[in-house]
Amino acid sequence: MARKKNAFYAQSGGVTAVINASACGVIETARAHSDQIGKVYAGRNGIIGALTEDLIDTSRESILSIAMLRSTPSGAFGSARYKLKSLEANRREYERLMEVFKAHNIGYFFYNGGGDSADTCYKVSQLSESMGYPIQAIHVPKTVDNDLPITDCCPGFGSVAKYVAVSALEASFDVRSMAKTSTKVFVLEVMGRHAGWIAAAGGLVQDHGIPVVVLFPEVEFDEAKFLARVDALVKSHGYCTVVVSEGCHYPDGRFLAEQGTRDAFGHAQLGGAAPVVANMVKQALGHKFHWAVADYLQRSARHIASKTDVKQAYELGRAAVRMALKGHNAVMPTIERVSDRPYKYKIGMAPLSEVANVEKFMPRDFITEDGFGITESCKRYLMPLIQGEDYPKYKDGLPVFATLKNLPVEKKLPAFEMK
Amino acid sequence: MARKKNAFYAQSGGVTAVINASACGVIETARAHSDQIGKVYAGRNGIIGALTEDLIDTSRESILSIAMLRSTPSGAFGSARYKLKSLEANRREYERLMEVFKAHNIGYFFYNGGGDSADTCYKVSQLSESMGYPIQAIHVPKTVDNDLPITDCCPGFGSVAKYVAVSALEASFDVRSMAKTSTKVFVLEVMGRHAGWIAAAGGLVQDHGIPVVVLFPEVEFDEAKFLARVDALVKSHGYCTVVVSEGCHYPDGRFLAEQGTRDAFGHAQLGGAAPVVANMVKQALGHKFHWAVADYLQRSARHIASKTDVKQAYELGRAAVRMALKGHNAVMPTIERVSDRPYKYKIGMAPLSEVANVEKFMPRDFITEDGFGITESCKRYLMPLIQGEDYPKYKDGLPVFATLKNLPVEKKLPAFEMK
Repeated sequence: MARKKNAFYAQSGGVTAVINASACGVIETARAHSDQIGKVYAGRNGIIGALTEDLIDTSRESILSIAMLRSTPSGAFGSARYKLKSLEANRREYERLMEVFKAHNIGYFFYNGGGDSADTCYKVSQLSESMGYPIQAIHVPKTVDNDLPITDCCPGFGSVAKYVAVSALEASFDVRSMAKTSTKVFVLEVMGRHAGWIAAAGGLVQDHGIPVVVLFPEVEFDEAKFLARVDALVKSHGYCTVVVSEGCHYPDGRFLAEQGTRDAFGHAQLGGAAPVVANMVKQALGHKFHWAVADYLQRSARHIASKTDVKQAYELGRAAVRMALKGHNAVMPTIERVSDRPYKYKIGMAPLSEVANVEKFMPRDFITEDGFGITESCKRYLMPLIQGEDYPKYKDGLPVFATLKNLPVEKKLPAFEMK
Repeated sequence: MARKKNAFYAQSGGVTAVINASACGVIETARAHSDQIGKVYAGRNGIIGALTEDLIDTSRESILSIAMLRSTPSGAFGSARYKLKSLEANRREYERLMEVFKAHNIGYFFYNGGGDSADTCYKVSQLSESMGYPIQAIHVPKTVDNDLPITDCCPGFGSVAKYVAVSALEASFDVRSMAKTSTKVFVLEVMGRHAGWIAAAGGLVQDHGIPVVVLFPEVEFDEAKFLARVDALVKSHGYCTVVVSEGCHYPDGRFLAEQGTRDAFGHAQLGGAAPVVANMVKQALGHKFHWAVADYLQRSARHIASKTDVKQAYELGRAAVRMALKGHNAVMPTIERVSDRPYKYKIGMAPLSEVANVEKFMPRDFITEDGFGITESCKRYLMPLIQGEDYPKYKDGLPVFATLKNLPVEKKLPAFEMK
């Protein structure tokens, strides 16, 4: 009987409120199959940990610590923004990965990330075949941007969507209270450089009577039309809320945030889209405004994570291990929606060849014809993803998150120079 | 026996996550004493509703709607930023208030706000004596800035503090995950133009192992010293979090947010302190950064309100009515801390003559000597205020907040022209 193989798990790209829930699913499921899988090693700072042979021995973590990952935001082992180049351009790095995997008897590669990591995962599986060292490479989807193909949604997105919808609702109530004598327009900037999924979640407050304008990256920004809409809403409701995607841009591709702004010393000033939009409203319509930029707060907001999202993140981690145990390779577990209401889904499986390098945008029929709101189809899509609350435990007023020991695995290879 | 008097309740200034909990306390307690108090009228848009005789009849709201105010952020009747001038400068407005109160048989005035409304409340009680129309004016404290004197804390503050501490913790975990290859410095801007109470709450993450720099309005900003601190923390921890108060300023009084920045058209650009601080770090130290401006999100974040704060907001509303029933006038119910751990407090009472126009700043011994952190005394003060969670109910993934009918009381007086 062949010697039991170890597994390697790494987190990639921007982290989320629930990527650790996927880690929890991977590690707990691997532990439950200790007859077939040896240890789970994690990459310290993602794939860089594999390249530099900086592996973390997750078997040194207690059952409780691993369980707590389910309610801990961020990447518990460190993540990395590091995209491996093509096989031709950088065969050296792929070969190094194989060496490290071989040296540590790793037979399973679980890579938890977005489009880039799906691509890397796919290449590793291809290379492992050609090099004759068998690696089962399974991609675990994660991205707040919700832009992976095939899967109905991506873990990480539902929680950001919930954060944005809840925050937009609360702040809109606030503005509504103040509008008579003070702030009339509130602008909230959210993530989404290319796809407007996150901004769309702000549109959910429409059904709570809030006059809201959503600015998507998918719709070219038309200042005159936008100002006319804000003006009309303030006239009819006394106030309005604007949810602007960071990727909102002019027809020539220039982002709203790029205003050629300079500080007193002439330095280019890096600003957000929210202050730009707010100032635009002030100058054209004279309304008092407030603006917020949620930035990391939105993607790390584990305190208001979607229960559906946490559950799916965990389940996809678990499914990845089960797929590996069934002999699958170069695949990604997916969410397949069965029905909207009641919400039902099942876990599917997609070949990485069809996932890698494909970006999923908002369908045009999810955005209202005027480009400023979301349609009923979009609401039907979004609603189940923000369902349920999954509160972390609190101690002394603050959530209790896991900080792991992250003990290193002894190195066996010569050092590798990162280029 | 004298005819039963009605009560007037109004919300003033910036709203909070819990000001409606105070409204709930006032209205429920008044209803429980319907043998002594008639109806509770609320001012539509605060004191403006009294001046324009635009009163809301809260007796038309159901028991359930009033109960739901306890978990609804913002000002349910509308608030106003409207400060009555001195009696000498604007006797006309005070006299109008008296006329409206008299016309609607109002004998109790509950004013829910910060320093300015305490002052107005005090003046109304003085005037009512001199005019021979008895009004018992009771101030219900509310301010996220926590800057009212005598009371140990102000309802509204504990919830903002909890939001800021939770958000700073979550975002810090995020940055820690990314620091190896990406963001090393995260800057969070919080409210507090004059007092650093809210920023101080960000310092609570220190005890969770987070390297954090807090920039207070009470401490003159020293760029070189600040950059040296950030540099040292990034070197020792790999990353750091900066919590900057909007009121942070240079020794000459200029706010960090006022950079004399101009957009491409030469318009003065209204920015935040966070992007300024972030760009400063980038230019001096070269670190990749992210920044967030919480703005209204922090003060409306009912979803993560402090249970202690909600409870106290309600209790002070209730206490205000009880004080009125006992015949008190020109007073404010306060929180008197009895012990830190376990946290014990009782409701006290302060004369408005001692509250009006006094601003409470952070004691110097709450800020570390270097000016960048909070001391143990400060932690002991803050910790109880963020204790406990008081989650609203959810439906379809979003919190269920009350939107009242807000039906008008029939007018009895000629119109009043606001100046």
